[in-house]
Amino acid sequence: MDLREIIVATRAAAKRLAALTGDERGRLLSDLAAALERPAIRQAVLAANAEDMGRATADVAAGRMPEPLMKRLNLDERKLDSAVEGLRQLAAMPELVGRVTTHRELDEGLILKRVTCPLGVLGVVFEARPEALVQITGLGWKSGNGLVVKGGREARSSNRALCEVAREVLVAHGIDPRALVLLEERAEVDTLLGMHDLVEMMIARGSSEFIRHVRSKSRIPVMAHADGICHLFLHDGADAQKAAHIAVDSKCSYPAACNSVETLLWEESAAAALDACVAALIAAKVELRGCAETIKRYPSMAAATDADWDTEYCAPILSIKRVAGLDEALDHIQRHGSRHTDAIVTEDAGAAQKFLASVDAACVFHNASTRFSDGFRFGLGAEVGISTDKLHARGPVGVEGLLTYRWLLAGNGQATGDYGPGGRRFTHRDLPDS
Amino acid sequence: MDLREIIVATRAAAKRLAALTGDERGRLLSDLAAALERPAIRQAVLAANAEDMGRATADVAAGRMPEPLMKRLNLDERKLDSAVEGLRQLAAMPELVGRVTTHRELDEGLILKRVTCPLGVLGVVFEARPEALVQITGLGWKSGNGLVVKGGREARSSNRALCEVAREVLVAHGIDPRALVLLEERAEVDTLLGMHDLVEMMIARGSSEFIRHVRSKSRIPVMAHADGICHLFLHDGADAQKAAHIAVDSKCSYPAACNSVETLLWEESAAAALDACVAALIAAKVELRGCAETIKRYPSMAAATDADWDTEYCAPILSIKRVAGLDEALDHIQRHGSRHTDAIVTEDAGAAQKFLASVDAACVFHNASTRFSDGFRFGLGAEVGISTDKLHARGPVGVEGLLTYRWLLAGNGQATGDYGPGGRRFTHRDLPDS
Repeated sequence: MDLREIIVATRAAAKRLAALTGDERGRLLSDLAAALERPAIRQAVLAANAEDMGRATADVAAGRMPEPLMKRLNLDERKLDSAVEGLRQLAAMPELVGRVTTHRELDEGLILKRVTCPLGVLGVVFEARPEALVQITGLGWKSGNGLVVKGGREARSSNRALCEVAREVLVAHGIDPRALVLLEERAEVDTLLGMHDLVEMMIARGSSEFIRHVRSKSRIPVMAHADGICHLFLHDGADAQKAAHIAVDSKCSYPAACNSVETLLWEESAAAALDACVAALIAAKVELRGCAETIKRYPSMAAATDADWDTEYCAPILSIKRVAGLDEALDHIQRHGSRHTDAIVTEDAGAAQKFLASVDAACVFHNASTRFSDGFRFGLGAEVGISTDKLHARGPVGVEGLLTYRWLLAGNGQATGDYGPGGRRFTHRDLPDS
Repeated sequence: MDLREIIVATRAAAKRLAALTGDERGRLLSDLAAALERPAIRQAVLAANAEDMGRATADVAAGRMPEPLMKRLNLDERKLDSAVEGLRQLAAMPELVGRVTTHRELDEGLILKRVTCPLGVLGVVFEARPEALVQITGLGWKSGNGLVVKGGREARSSNRALCEVAREVLVAHGIDPRALVLLEERAEVDTLLGMHDLVEMMIARGSSEFIRHVRSKSRIPVMAHADGICHLFLHDGADAQKAAHIAVDSKCSYPAACNSVETLLWEESAAAALDACVAALIAAKVELRGCAETIKRYPSMAAATDADWDTEYCAPILSIKRVAGLDEALDHIQRHGSRHTDAIVTEDAGAAQKFLASVDAACVFHNASTRFSDGFRFGLGAEVGISTDKLHARGPVGVEGLLTYRWLLAGNGQATGDYGPGGRRFTHRDLPDS
């Protein structure tokens, strides 16, 4: 069938999703959670994932697929439980569609409201991590948007099974199942990118090259993070134990994640903290690459080249650079960072304050791991992605980032010519939310 | 001098603007207001405008410029007073930079804040209306952004004079005057469009062709309304007097404005209201073009063609179409509207409710003129433009639309690995704003 016709149907179905009451929306989400807890359904989903894993095992053996991908692809009871828990959290969150965010009397009998509403239809392209489909569906339903999703090819059986469950829940609620469309071919994504009249936003997760491809092919706004080059700065008076704990977590807990740290900056007076970090990172089997000054302190460390400061390793590799102090650290981050997440380790409140106030990034942390940059950890319920753009949503994007608003004005016959010198005056009086 | 070097300086100066306290920002705005009230300065500005008007008069006489442009170009005491009043309103508004919009405990001693901040540097291209430069400067300063502005060529002397006043105020506050850069050549705008690493957003006002040009030339996000095809729907039970009052204001108070109405829709049971509108519009010298059904009622009316339903006249011309009822009106608006502003006239609360809930436009009105779509009238202080996009700001864009936010997290050594099964649990407790 023609993809365009399908997406036209998605648009119509999205209107139904948008018009649900808060209670109906909550039930839709809880019903999906309940379905994913039913033993028969769960067995079918896990069996589908076993198919994907079987193909992946052969692909890894044949050298057609990198091994670490298997860990992401694998869907187990624990991951499913956690996705179900996420759906229940979303269901329990207050309704975010139809919220009055401005309520203002412009004049007697002329009342302005700014009201949140869904964007319409979202395209979401994500990696081969099947539970992401559940999270994205949850966020899409909570925000009242139609969804056209494309997961990693390696997860196609899992995605098909999960999508079927979700579409059955839609049907049970009297909603056209085309409110959630699963694409399976890269070519379909390219076709979708041309439908700027039907799709309000593309959310792209994947390699920088893929995101650049999406941006270049489409007039549809793209929400994405092109790169994740995050920094950790050991400032004068950094606590050595905290520094090592944060550095290891920032680098090792998920080296392929965009919020992992790539470069450690240190100043001379933080050398003790650096020593603790280096020892802990070596123990954690991280490959370290130092600048000339760093190597003076650790003569056996490999040398970093200029390219290292602009590299997202997606691997247990870390570059280390000595800076003169806070200002040079800020300057390095400004020049080489990707405006994602940067952190300072220090006990000096003034320096922390300056760092937090100065770094132009979506997330700026003090004495905490860069890996906290995450919608779930931020308490957003889940995230559809992380944006390093400044417009619309920035940083981890939850339900709010999938909404827009409309201005609604109710009068009783007013014209603008009634106002002005000699005429009526605006009262511009903010009213309590209704 | 190289434009790129100048914009690099604008970026640095913008950081100073961003770091101002609310009081300092207020004084900056009041000082500009005060300067524009000083007789010597006012004389210089009005003299510069007289130069522009002199050139324009010759251009109109020679047929090189359309006459209506003169009215926009003309800067008089009243327009200046109103721009000064706008600056004072902005100065008095609460500080919007550095506002905490989320304040959440993720765990004991791990505190997340989402804090508003300026975008950085904005490019603004606007029409030959000199007081717009004052409004844009006010919004830019209130939001802490650096500005690169380009006004209509016809207003170049006025813009130069106004810009000089503003830059002197910057200098008096110890801020590099390159925080506000005035471009005078179209070619400079094209150069600016290539600086996506230095400019966060382009705000484009002007013809649809110009906006399409900007969008196609640049990777910088563009805030704009490409078209303003607004509708007025006379529903069953529309009050005839209100309908006529609203229709005349929506069409005639400023036909070239984007929020002027282009198409009047009516249903049979609202024929009396239509009669009142038609009589009033004819009296106001509006050219009317009707569909076949409309012409049956007014045989002397000119016939509309299909192209009329998609035309922004920017002139005292109005197309009129009969529809079967509310649903067909919604369908027509969906198909031909530009998602700007659409209004219904009716005394039927249910129909109004359905219209307000259904129209996918930035502004949806009931019993009020479409011309109320305006930042000043909405109580935003002023507007930098009106956006028909759904991402970021929508509708009239005031200070809020020129801001983004950052997520700031303050901990005491936490790592993400500390959380999860067997470890710590997030508290995710919202705290009062600080």
